[in-house]
Amino acid sequence: MSDIAHLGPVELLTPKGDETLHFFHELMGMEIEGEEGGSVYLRGWGDYQRYSLKLTESPSSGLACAGLRAYSPQALERRVAAIEAAGLGEGWIEGARGRGPSYRFRDPDGHAFEIYFEVERYEPPEHLRPTLKNQPQRYVPRGCAVRRFDHLNLLAGDVRANRLFAQEALDYRLYERVELDDGTEAGAWMSATINAHELIYTQDHSHARGRLHHLAYWVDTREECMRAGDIFVDSDIRIEFAPSRHAVAQGFFVYVIEPGGNRIEVTSGGYQVYDPQQPTVVWTAAERARGQFWGNPTVASFHTYGTPPIEADGHEH
Amino acid sequence: MSDIAHLGPVELLTPKGDETLHFFHELMGMEIEGEEGGSVYLRGWGDYQRYSLKLTESPSSGLACAGLRAYSPQALERRVAAIEAAGLGEGWIEGARGRGPSYRFRDPDGHAFEIYFEVERYEPPEHLRPTLKNQPQRYVPRGCAVRRFDHLNLLAGDVRANRLFAQEALDYRLYERVELDDGTEAGAWMSATINAHELIYTQDHSHARGRLHHLAYWVDTREECMRAGDIFVDSDIRIEFAPSRHAVAQGFFVYVIEPGGNRIEVTSGGYQVYDPQQPTVVWTAAERARGQFWGNPTVASFHTYGTPPIEADGHEH
Amino acid sequence: MSDIAHLGPVELLTPKGDETLHFFHELMGMEIEGEEGGSVYLRGWGDYQRYSLKLTESPSSGLACAGLRAYSPQALERRVAAIEAAGLGEGWIEGARGRGPSYRFRDPDGHAFEIYFEVERYEPPEHLRPTLKNQPQRYVPRGCAVRRFDHLNLLAGDVRANRLFAQEALDYRLYERVELDDGTEAGAWMSATINAHELIYTQDHSHARGRLHHLAYWVDTREECMRAGDIFVDSDIRIEFAPSRHAVAQGFFVYVIEPGGNRIEVTSGGYQVYDPQQPTVVWTAAERARGQFWGNPTVASFHTYGTPPIEADGHEH
Amino acid sequence: MSDIAHLGPVELLTPKGDETLHFFHELMGMEIEGEEGGSVYLRGWGDYQRYSLKLTESPSSGLACAGLRAYSPQALERRVAAIEAAGLGEGWIEGARGRGPSYRFRDPDGHAFEIYFEVERYEPPEHLRPTLKNQPQRYVPRGCAVRRFDHLNLLAGDVRANRLFAQEALDYRLYERVELDDGTEAGAWMSATINAHELIYTQDHSHARGRLHHLAYWVDTREECMRAGDIFVDSDIRIEFAPSRHAVAQGFFVYVIEPGGNRIEVTSGGYQVYDPQQPTVVWTAAERARGQFWGNPTVASFHTYGTPPIEADGHEH
Repeated sequence: MSDIAHLGPVELLTPKGDETLHFFHELMGMEIEGEEGGSVYLRGWGDYQRYSLKLTESPSSGLACAGLRAYSPQALERRVAAIEAAGLGEGWIEGARGRGPSYRFRDPDGHAFEIYFEVERYEPPEHLRPTLKNQPQRYVPRGCAVRRFDHLNLLAGDVRANRLFAQEALDYRLYERVELDDGTEAGAWMSATINAHELIYTQDHSHARGRLHHLAYWVDTREECMRAGDIFVDSDIRIEFAPSRHAVAQGFFVYVIEPGGNRIEVTSGGYQVYDPQQPTVVWTAAERARGQFWGNPTVASFHTYGTPPIEADGHEH
Repeated sequence: MSDIAHLGPVELLTPKGDETLHFFHELMGMEIEGEEGGSVYLRGWGDYQRYSLKLTESPSSGLACAGLRAYSPQALERRVAAIEAAGLGEGWIEGARGRGPSYRFRDPDGHAFEIYFEVERYEPPEHLRPTLKNQPQRYVPRGCAVRRFDHLNLLAGDVRANRLFAQEALDYRLYERVELDDGTEAGAWMSATINAHELIYTQDHSHARGRLHHLAYWVDTREECMRAGDIFVDSDIRIEFAPSRHAVAQGFFVYVIEPGGNRIEVTSGGYQVYDPQQPTVVWTAAERARGQFWGNPTVASFHTYGTPPIEADGHEH
Repeated sequence: MSDIAHLGPVELLTPKGDETLHFFHELMGMEIEGEEGGSVYLRGWGDYQRYSLKLTESPSSGLACAGLRAYSPQALERRVAAIEAAGLGEGWIEGARGRGPSYRFRDPDGHAFEIYFEVERYEPPEHLRPTLKNQPQRYVPRGCAVRRFDHLNLLAGDVRANRLFAQEALDYRLYERVELDDGTEAGAWMSATINAHELIYTQDHSHARGRLHHLAYWVDTREECMRAGDIFVDSDIRIEFAPSRHAVAQGFFVYVIEPGGNRIEVTSGGYQVYDPQQPTVVWTAAERARGQFWGNPTVASFHTYGTPPIEADGHEH
Repeated sequence: MSDIAHLGPVELLTPKGDETLHFFHELMGMEIEGEEGGSVYLRGWGDYQRYSLKLTESPSSGLACAGLRAYSPQALERRVAAIEAAGLGEGWIEGARGRGPSYRFRDPDGHAFEIYFEVERYEPPEHLRPTLKNQPQRYVPRGCAVRRFDHLNLLAGDVRANRLFAQEALDYRLYERVELDDGTEAGAWMSATINAHELIYTQDHSHARGRLHHLAYWVDTREECMRAGDIFVDSDIRIEFAPSRHAVAQGFFVYVIEPGGNRIEVTSGGYQVYDPQQPTVVWTAAERARGQFWGNPTVASFHTYGTPPIEADGHEH
């Protein structure tokens, strides 16, 4: 029970517009909902909103902005008041494509967000009308055929500060976190629903701020995650972390680097939280050193790479 | 965002105590959490409460009572006030095993419920302590190894009346319903969370009241539902409806009749509702006549059989 | 250990050339290997030969011819001698696309076959070259993305006579059969390898001869069979028999009627036979009446429909 | 088309008899077929022979002997003649439990084998009789519930010499091999059937001879391999190589070290070879350096550890 209904859409930046679009349309299997102002809007077949991804060509990669839908007009008011109280508000703006008035703000690390309540539900054109009417769109069997946007992992210099902001100002629930021996918080997994993670902060060891760790898109089965791996192998997309299962949040994954450089996950599984008093799981460094669910090690770049990328000296590429 | 956290535990009646216990322990793979007052308490390895099923031997089968956990003390107060206003309250009772003060009531069809807020979280004994601490219990690979209680389907003479009570007094959200050509409501699928169904009412064509259609237990994959089918085939358990996928709510299923006569489902999949303004899907009789998701027909007994069973003349066995 | 390496390619007839081609290319996800003489040649990404399906437009539907690859030149000689001894040979012909000299014959029911040894292995063009060289072609994630041709089920007026011919003249092994109470053989499942079925005969209750029951294409997982079901539901393809598991041979299936009228299966699973002395399983009518693996009934049309279709009076459409 | 029907049963040695038995019975889910002479005989529910594993307590771990069933009495004669011609025969012995006269020999690396034709098919006791008669035994849902023995990987000082012996004397077909830049053969994957691997040799970098790399047991789905991983995580069994997919032979796997020290795989998937003229795939060191199917690296111990284990100085533990 949170004032937040869900995260997304997100606006993703890419220095390789055509190749990144090909990645999301042909390989991830998303539909192009429209184009506007130089950006392309894409959706999974199960997204209820008009789109869940806005792609914008840009000199570098990274996340431009994340949408956040409040659960009700009153929830929106409460969240805006809390954000303003935290001194991180930037003010009301006219809504983006498919949504009403939005309030723009940044988290402590500098990631831009827009929170709003009013949205348009997707109305499929004739050729995408589903056979079963409890589904927003026809299932299109192209590429990975991802169902919907699932979760967002943001890099932050100070995980704890951003996590506290997300809990207090945004009304997220904290399900798991990692605390190192020196008290540093290395990661925090939060959700506005019963799903184990929707908004994640993990530590940015660089001096850069406002960076993206990854976007995750949902498929219904682990078999589809592995099939995504097969597709990427035969499409010359770099798989950074082969299909496996996380220890934290227990989700199944495959991570790739899309042609524009952003890390993208295809995910399924994970647990659900029915207990309104669920205690937060706190992992120690020693526990996390045991690796992922089945004991396999985490790929090293997973702890260092983000977008926009950083040169060794701390400057962007 | 509902005042309800979740349904369950449920108390199930069986005329064949030993055989039904064998079914849930050996074949469904649930753990015996304890025994008390002649009843046996069982749990899935993923249930966060001490138990999700109370088994009680009785002259006939059916549902004795369903638990309902409120989301907060305030939510509990609101629900009790609404139930009392509906004239269906029976009063406060001391809490059952593992829970605090509970308010007992009946739905319009006569099914008994108890609503409460305080519960005890499960503390596993040493031999059931999980390796990963974000899991309530060790995974025990016995039988179907169901994870947790998932949903409850109740038969009702007047689906609409019960559905309205669940929406108004219990704060359930209505995601799908079936309305016949004469205006009769044949079924209603409701939830307190983003999962597509947690509490279902379907029509009882007999004169009996307060009957059970089925209890459903969750497994994480469709493969495990099919494996459950394999287990039942080789265990002489009657499969009523072979593994397949529902059109309504889109869940994957296998339905069996446990030795005591109650219909039990092993389920996975289904969609999730992120839209706080999700419009209810209303199916017509013609649409439902197209069968399940892949067009296969529904087994006839699915529309007639419930527990306790009814003789042709309307009397119980 | 059979003189036969495998069945296929097959030539399929369709009165709706464009729609059937769309079905196999877009929905089944096969590649077009080439066009020649008005026919289109298609392949699954895992077929080692150049093609496994030849599509030919024709006034009606059905099977024009089935290829049969002998295991060696000597095996080919032995089989031709046996076929000639059975009086069913039609003589040597120049090889079809991608294969060497072939001997043409008919089974007792009149289905045409061509048996040969020499074939060309598929050489993928650059854009279809696989990343892993132990795979004949890149995995192309379009539609069901079937891997390869798997098995063939032929209708026959006299199953026993055709089965005996397949065993004696073609060197097939008989793994399972159905024998009715009056001694009629209702079906026979044979294989040239350890896979549970490759060539099947089932009873044609009509007066027509040489008809096709179905062609089956392989996918690696049951999840992909179910996904095929999802694709067909949203592509207006008629699913005749929803995804489930057979009792005989234990294969997982979904059956559809392609736009030209032919029954097509997407299949996975089934058992393997390692025993060179494997006894044939003989099912009685009573045993088959128990339905498929999980007890669900067989769709009625499965016992009557074949291609080319027969009118009630016995004439073709 | 090989003179060999299949590999197995195998006799495995363990210094921890009770714990290893618990591993195979409770966790792998095999049935105890009998005990004789201090050894325990186990079977998967899908093994057609009486048993596929003989467990014997011993000071160290490793493989005592591998059975090899010839396809026919004539095939047995041919193989014995070829083995004798290679100078590696040890002579005829009375058959082991459940099989007839056997010829004992060693491969060039010193692994012991027994080849035979006559075997007894398994006859299940009443409580293990399957519901479907095309299955050798009831499916028992305990632990991983492995179906049958699948393949054997042996370490060898000279892979090429052992591979050539297996091809020439044993009539195995070679599907894939690894050849290093200096011409050394690092691994060879062979089969007597269409399945991609049944007998594998990989390089033993130690001075020891006759060692075991691993035994593999089959489950029908990748989901069951991952479920095996879950079971091992919660059973304190060391997972050496988390569930993933091989590049060579493309099989899905999870590798564990059983309590006695032997490496055991639960496997599914892989491709099949229908071409009687299938060219052998030869991998270079550079190609193998790309890792497994999805690019993930191979666990280092996979290249060094075998049983019986070797101390750094070359002596056994």
